[in-house]
Amino acid sequence: MHQLNLRKARPEDASAVWEIIEPIIRAGETYVFSPDTPREKMLDYWLGADKDTYVAVLDGEILGTFYLKANQPDRGSHVANAGYMVGEKARGKGIAKAMAEFSFVEAKRLGYTAMQFNYVISSNTVAVQLWQKMGFKIVGQVPDAFAHPGLGLTDVYVMYRKL
Amino acid sequence: MHQLNLRKARPEDASAVWEIIEPIIRAGETYVFSPDTPREKMLDYWLGADKDTYVAVLDGEILGTFYLKANQPDRGSHVANAGYMVGEKARGKGIAKAMAEFSFVEAKRLGYTAMQFNYVISSNTVAVQLWQKMGFKIVGQVPDAFAHPGLGLTDVYVMYRKL
Repeated sequence: MHQLNLRKARPEDASAVWEIIEPIIRAGETYVFSPDTPREKMLDYWLGADKDTYVAVLDGEILGTFYLKANQPDRGSHVANAGYMVGEKARGKGIAKAMAEFSFVEAKRLGYTAMQFNYVISSNTVAVQLWQKMGFKIVGQVPDAFAHPGLGLTDVYVMYRKL
Repeated sequence: MHQLNLRKARPEDASAVWEIIEPIIRAGETYVFSPDTPREKMLDYWLGADKDTYVAVLDGEILGTFYLKANQPDRGSHVANAGYMVGEKARGKGIAKAMAEFSFVEAKRLGYTAMQFNYVISSNTVAVQLWQKMGFKIVGQVPDAFAHPGLGLTDVYVMYRKL
Protein backbone atom coordinates (compact mmCIF):
# COMPACT_ATOMS: atom_id res chain seq x y z
CA MET A 1 0.00 0.00 0.00
CA HIS A 2 1.26 3.47 -0.85
CA GLN A 3 -1.37 6.12 -0.50
CA LEU A 4 -1.29 9.91 -0.17
CA ASN A 5 -4.39 11.45 1.35
CA LEU A 6 -4.72 15.24 1.24
CA ARG A 7 -7.48 16.41 3.55
CA LYS A 8 -8.58 19.18 5.94
CA ALA A 9 -6.76 19.13 9.27
CA ARG A 10 -8.77 18.02 12.30
CA PRO A 11 -8.26 19.00 15.94
CA GLU A 12 -6.77 15.59 16.69
CA ASP A 13 -4.02 16.21 14.08
CA ALA A 14 -2.46 18.94 16.25
CA SER A 15 0.36 16.80 17.69
CA ALA A 16 1.39 15.46 14.30
CA VAL A 17 1.30 18.96 12.80
CA TRP A 18 3.48 20.27 15.61
CA GLU A 19 5.98 17.44 14.99
CA ILE A 20 6.38 18.76 11.45
CA ILE A 21 6.51 22.43 12.38
CA GLU A 22 8.79 22.26 15.42
CA PRO A 23 12.10 21.21 13.77
CA ILE A 24 11.52 23.66 10.92
CA ILE A 25 11.08 26.68 13.19
CA ARG A 26 13.84 25.44 15.54
CA ALA A 27 16.23 25.55 12.56
CA GLY A 28 14.97 29.08 11.96
CA GLU A 29 16.25 29.39 8.40
CA THR A 30 13.11 29.28 6.29
CA TYR A 31 10.23 30.74 8.32
CA VAL A 32 9.83 34.05 10.11
CA PHE A 33 8.80 32.47 13.41
CA SER A 34 11.21 32.58 16.33
CA PRO A 35 12.91 29.23 17.08
CA ASP A 36 11.47 29.32 20.60
CA THR A 37 7.85 29.95 19.54
CA PRO A 38 5.72 27.88 21.96
CA ARG A 39 3.71 24.95 20.61
CA GLU A 40 0.39 26.51 21.64
CA LYS A 41 1.09 29.85 19.94
CA MET A 42 2.33 28.19 16.75
CA LEU A 43 -0.64 25.83 16.50
CA ASP A 44 -3.07 28.69 17.20
CA TYR A 45 -1.51 30.39 14.19
CA TRP A 46 -1.25 27.42 11.82
CA LEU A 47 -4.70 26.02 12.64
CA GLY A 48 -6.31 29.45 13.20
CA ALA A 49 -9.93 30.20 12.37
CA ASP A 50 -8.81 32.64 9.63
CA LYS A 51 -7.26 29.74 7.70
CA ASP A 52 -8.16 26.56 5.89
CA THR A 53 -5.52 24.10 7.05
CA TYR A 54 -4.78 20.76 5.44
CA VAL A 55 -2.57 17.74 6.10
CA ALA A 56 -0.83 15.32 3.76
CA VAL A 57 -1.18 11.77 5.05
CA LEU A 58 1.13 9.16 3.51
CA ASP A 59 0.19 5.59 4.39
CA GLY A 60 -1.59 6.78 7.52
CA GLU A 61 1.17 9.13 8.70
CA ILE A 62 0.89 12.93 8.61
CA LEU A 63 4.00 14.10 6.74
CA GLY A 64 3.04 17.55 5.53
CA THR A 65 0.70 20.43 6.19
CA PHE A 66 -0.38 23.65 4.51
CA TYR A 67 -2.85 26.44 5.04
CA LEU A 68 -4.79 28.78 2.78
CA LYS A 69 -6.09 32.16 3.80
CA ALA A 70 -7.01 35.49 2.25
CA ASN A 71 -3.87 37.59 1.85
CA GLN A 72 -5.89 40.77 2.50
CA PRO A 73 -9.44 41.45 3.69
CA ASP A 74 -12.32 42.75 1.59
CA ARG A 75 -11.13 44.34 -1.68
CA GLY A 76 -8.01 42.18 -1.63
CA SER A 77 -9.61 38.94 -0.49
CA HIS A 78 -9.60 37.35 -3.97
CA VAL A 79 -5.87 36.68 -3.54
CA ALA A 80 -4.90 33.67 -1.42
CA ASN A 81 -1.91 33.40 0.81
CA ALA A 82 -0.53 30.00 1.80
CA GLY A 83 2.13 28.35 3.91
CA TYR A 84 3.57 24.84 3.51
CA MET A 85 5.66 22.58 5.68
CA VAL A 86 6.94 19.07 4.97
CA GLY A 87 8.34 16.79 7.68
CA GLU A 88 12.06 16.07 7.55
CA LYS A 89 11.67 12.38 6.76
CA ALA A 90 9.32 13.15 3.88
CA ARG A 91 11.60 15.49 1.91
CA GLY A 92 12.36 14.63 -1.69
CA LYS A 93 9.31 12.40 -2.10
CA GLY A 94 7.25 14.93 -4.00
CA ILE A 95 4.96 15.57 -1.04
CA ALA A 96 5.51 19.32 -1.30
CA LYS A 97 4.61 19.32 -5.02
CA ALA A 98 1.51 17.25 -4.39
CA MET A 99 0.43 19.55 -1.57
CA ALA A 100 1.08 22.58 -3.75
CA GLU A 101 -0.96 21.24 -6.68
CA PHE A 102 -3.80 20.31 -4.36
CA SER A 103 -3.61 23.74 -2.69
CA PHE A 104 -4.16 25.42 -6.07
CA VAL A 105 -7.25 23.26 -6.66
CA GLU A 106 -8.59 24.02 -3.21
CA ALA A 107 -7.81 27.73 -3.46
CA LYS A 108 -9.78 27.92 -6.72
CA ARG A 109 -12.64 25.98 -5.15
CA LEU A 110 -12.67 28.50 -2.27
CA GLY A 111 -13.02 31.33 -4.80
CA TYR A 112 -9.48 32.70 -4.92
CA THR A 113 -8.20 33.79 -8.34
CA ALA A 114 -4.49 34.16 -7.53
CA MET A 115 -1.95 33.22 -4.89
CA GLN A 116 0.67 35.44 -3.27
CA PHE A 117 3.54 34.60 -0.95
CA ASN A 118 4.74 37.61 1.03
CA TYR A 119 7.81 36.16 2.65
CA VAL A 120 9.85 33.64 0.66
CA ILE A 121 13.36 33.89 2.09
CA SER A 122 15.77 34.38 -0.79
CA SER A 123 18.39 32.02 0.65
CA ASN A 124 15.83 29.20 0.65
CA THR A 125 16.69 28.25 -2.93
CA VAL A 126 14.90 24.90 -2.75
CA ALA A 127 11.63 26.69 -2.08
CA VAL A 128 12.23 29.53 -4.55
CA GLN A 129 13.03 27.07 -7.35
CA LEU A 130 10.09 24.84 -6.51
CA TRP A 131 7.68 27.77 -6.66
CA GLN A 132 9.18 29.02 -9.91
CA LYS A 133 8.74 25.54 -11.43
CA MET A 134 5.14 25.65 -10.26
CA GLY A 135 4.37 28.87 -12.09
CA PHE A 136 5.17 31.51 -9.50
CA LYS A 137 7.06 34.64 -10.45
CA ILE A 138 9.12 36.83 -8.16
CA VAL A 139 7.13 40.09 -8.19
CA GLY A 140 8.95 41.78 -5.34
CA GLN A 141 12.19 41.74 -3.39
CA VAL A 142 12.35 43.35 0.05
CA PRO A 143 15.93 44.05 1.19
CA ASP A 144 17.14 42.63 4.52
CA ALA A 145 13.65 41.68 5.68
CA PHE A 146 14.67 38.39 7.36
CA ALA A 147 17.15 38.06 10.21
CA HIS A 148 18.76 34.76 9.15
CA PRO A 149 20.52 32.99 12.02
CA GLY A 150 23.60 32.22 9.91
CA LEU A 151 23.59 34.65 7.02
CA GLY A 152 22.41 37.80 8.79
CA LEU A 153 19.92 40.14 7.18
CA THR A 154 18.59 38.46 4.06
CA ASP A 155 16.26 39.59 1.28
CA VAL A 156 12.74 38.26 1.05
CA TYR A 157 10.80 37.62 -2.16
CA VAL A 158 7.16 38.31 -2.89
CA MET A 159 5.97 35.55 -5.26
CA TYR A 160 2.75 35.35 -7.23
CA ARG A 161 0.76 33.25 -9.65
CA LYS A 162 -2.71 33.30 -11.11
CA LEU A 163 -4.92 30.34 -10.33
CA MET B 1 -2.31 80.23 17.01
CA HIS B 2 -1.35 77.54 14.52
CA GLN B 3 -0.02 74.43 16.14
CA LEU B 4 0.41 70.82 15.02
CA ASN B 5 0.65 68.28 17.80
CA LEU B 6 1.65 64.73 16.88
CA ARG B 7 0.98 62.36 19.76
CA LYS B 8 -0.13 58.84 20.68
CA ALA B 9 -3.86 58.21 20.21
CA ARG B 10 -5.96 57.91 23.37
CA PRO B 11 -9.20 55.97 23.83
CA GLU B 12 -11.17 59.24 23.82
CA ASP B 13 -9.84 60.00 20.31
CA ALA B 14 -11.85 57.13 18.81
CA SER B 15 -14.71 59.23 17.44
CA ALA B 16 -12.40 61.76 15.80
CA VAL B 17 -10.32 58.94 14.30
CA TRP B 18 -13.45 57.31 12.90
CA GLU B 19 -14.50 60.63 11.33
CA ILE B 20 -11.23 60.59 9.39
CA ILE B 21 -11.37 56.91 8.46
CA GLU B 22 -15.05 56.62 7.49
CA PRO B 23 -15.14 58.78 4.32
CA ILE B 24 -11.87 57.25 3.13
CA ILE B 25 -13.09 53.67 3.34
CA ARG B 26 -16.55 54.66 2.06
CA ALA B 27 -14.88 55.98 -1.11
CA GLY B 28 -13.11 52.61 -1.30
CA GLU B 29 -10.39 53.67 -3.73
CA THR B 30 -7.26 53.79 -1.60
CA TYR B 31 -7.60 51.22 1.19
CA VAL B 32 -8.35 47.53 1.13
CA PHE B 33 -11.19 47.74 3.67
CA SER B 34 -14.73 47.24 2.47
CA PRO B 35 -16.77 50.48 2.24
CA ASP B 36 -19.30 49.03 4.68
CA THR B 37 -16.76 48.02 7.35
CA PRO B 38 -18.47 48.75 10.70
CA ARG B 39 -17.04 51.47 12.95
CA GLU B 40 -16.26 49.02 15.76
CA LYS B 41 -14.37 46.59 13.54
CA MET B 42 -12.37 49.36 11.87
CA LEU B 43 -11.41 51.03 15.14
CA ASP B 44 -10.46 47.66 16.66
CA TYR B 45 -8.08 47.32 13.72
CA TRP B 46 -6.67 50.87 13.62
CA LEU B 47 -6.29 51.20 17.39
CA GLY B 48 -5.43 47.52 17.95
CA ALA B 49 -3.04 46.33 20.65
CA ASP B 50 -0.58 45.13 17.97
CA LYS B 51 -0.09 48.74 16.84
CA ASP B 52 1.25 52.08 18.03
CA THR B 53 -1.37 54.55 16.83
CA TYR B 54 -0.92 58.32 16.65
CA VAL B 55 -3.04 61.35 15.85
CA ALA B 56 -2.15 64.69 14.27
CA VAL B 57 -3.90 67.51 16.10
CA LEU B 58 -4.01 70.89 14.34
CA ASP B 59 -5.13 73.74 16.58
CA GLY B 60 -6.93 71.29 18.85
CA GLU B 61 -8.63 69.32 16.06
CA ILE B 62 -7.66 65.77 15.10
CA LEU B 63 -7.03 65.87 11.35
CA GLY B 64 -4.86 62.86 10.73
CA THR B 65 -3.89 59.49 12.14
CA PHE B 66 -1.32 56.80 11.54
CA TYR B 67 -0.20 53.54 13.03
CA LEU B 68 3.08 51.68 13.27
CA LYS B 69 3.41 47.94 13.73
CA ALA B 70 5.84 45.14 13.01
CA ASN B 71 5.34 43.95 9.44
CA GLN B 72 6.23 40.39 10.46
CA PRO B 73 6.76 38.66 13.81
CA ASP B 74 10.07 37.50 15.27
CA ARG B 75 12.82 37.28 12.63
CA GLY B 76 11.07 39.93 10.54
CA SER B 77 10.05 42.26 13.34
CA HIS B 78 12.81 44.81 12.64
CA VAL B 79 10.77 46.05 9.67
CA ALA B 80 7.87 48.39 10.45
CA ASN B 81 4.59 48.58 8.63
CA ALA B 82 2.47 51.71 8.79
CA GLY B 83 -0.86 53.15 7.65
CA TYR B 84 -1.79 56.83 7.32
CA MET B 85 -5.05 58.68 6.89
CA VAL B 86 -5.66 62.42 6.61
CA GLY B 87 -9.10 63.98 6.99
CA GLU B 88 -10.66 65.46 3.86
CA LYS B 89 -10.53 69.05 5.07
CA ALA B 90 -6.86 68.74 5.96
CA ARG B 91 -5.59 67.65 2.54
CA GLY B 92 -2.86 69.74 0.90
CA LYS B 93 -1.70 71.28 4.17
CA GLY B 94 1.36 69.09 4.58
CA ILE B 95 -0.20 67.11 7.41
CA ALA B 96 0.57 63.83 5.66
CA LYS B 97 4.23 64.79 5.21
CA ALA B 98 4.52 65.88 8.82
CA MET B 99 2.93 62.66 10.01
CA ALA B 100 5.22 60.64 7.75
CA GLU B 101 8.39 62.36 8.99
CA PHE B 102 7.30 61.93 12.59
CA SER B 103 6.43 58.28 11.94
CA PHE B 104 10.01 57.64 10.75
CA VAL B 105 11.36 59.20 13.96
CA GLU B 106 8.99 57.16 16.09
CA ALA B 107 9.66 53.95 14.17
CA LYS B 108 13.39 54.37 14.77
CA ARG B 109 12.78 55.11 18.44
CA LEU B 110 10.75 51.88 18.65
CA GLY B 111 13.71 49.96 17.24
CA TYR B 112 12.66 49.44 13.62
CA THR B 113 15.39 49.72 11.00
CA ALA B 114 13.23 49.90 7.86
CA MET B 115 9.66 50.48 6.80
CA GLN B 116 7.58 48.47 4.33
CA PHE B 117 4.17 49.11 2.82
CA ASN B 118 2.54 45.95 1.49
CA TYR B 119 -0.44 47.43 -0.25
CA VAL B 120 -0.04 50.81 -1.96
CA ILE B 121 -2.68 50.85 -4.67
CA SER B 122 -0.99 51.77 -7.95
CA SER B 123 -3.83 54.06 -9.06
CA ASN B 124 -3.36 56.16 -5.91
CA THR B 125 -0.72 58.31 -7.59
CA VAL B 126 -0.83 61.01 -4.90
CA ALA B 127 0.26 58.47 -2.31
CA VAL B 128 2.79 56.72 -4.56
CA GLN B 129 4.47 60.02 -5.47
CA LEU B 130 4.46 61.24 -1.88
CA TRP B 131 6.16 58.06 -0.70
CA GLN B 132 8.71 58.21 -3.50
CA LYS B 133 9.54 61.82 -2.54
CA MET B 134 9.97 60.62 1.02
CA GLY B 135 12.58 58.03 0.08
CA PHE B 136 10.49 54.95 -0.58
CA LYS B 137 11.22 52.72 -3.53
CA ILE B 138 8.77 50.40 -5.27
CA VAL B 139 10.28 46.97 -4.51
CA GLY B 140 7.35 44.89 -5.68
CA GLN B 141 4.27 44.99 -7.89
CA VAL B 142 1.47 42.48 -7.39
CA PRO B 143 -0.85 42.21 -10.39
CA ASP B 144 -4.58 42.75 -9.90
CA ALA B 145 -4.41 42.57 -6.11
CA PHE B 146 -6.99 45.33 -5.45
CA ALA B 147 -10.61 45.26 -6.57
CA HIS B 148 -10.99 48.98 -7.36
CA PRO B 149 -14.64 50.10 -7.40
CA GLY B 150 -14.16 52.10 -10.62
CA LEU B 151 -11.08 50.71 -12.34
CA GLY B 152 -11.53 47.01 -11.67
CA LEU B 153 -8.62 44.82 -10.72
CA THR B 154 -5.65 47.08 -10.07
CA ASP B 155 -1.98 46.41 -9.28
CA VAL B 156 -0.61 46.98 -5.82
CA TYR B 157 2.90 48.16 -4.98
CA VAL B 158 5.18 47.01 -2.20
CA MET B 159 7.22 50.05 -1.10
CA TYR B 160 10.23 50.20 1.17
CA ARG B 161 12.79 52.49 2.75
CA LYS B 162 15.52 52.16 5.35
CA LEU B 163 15.11 54.23 8.49
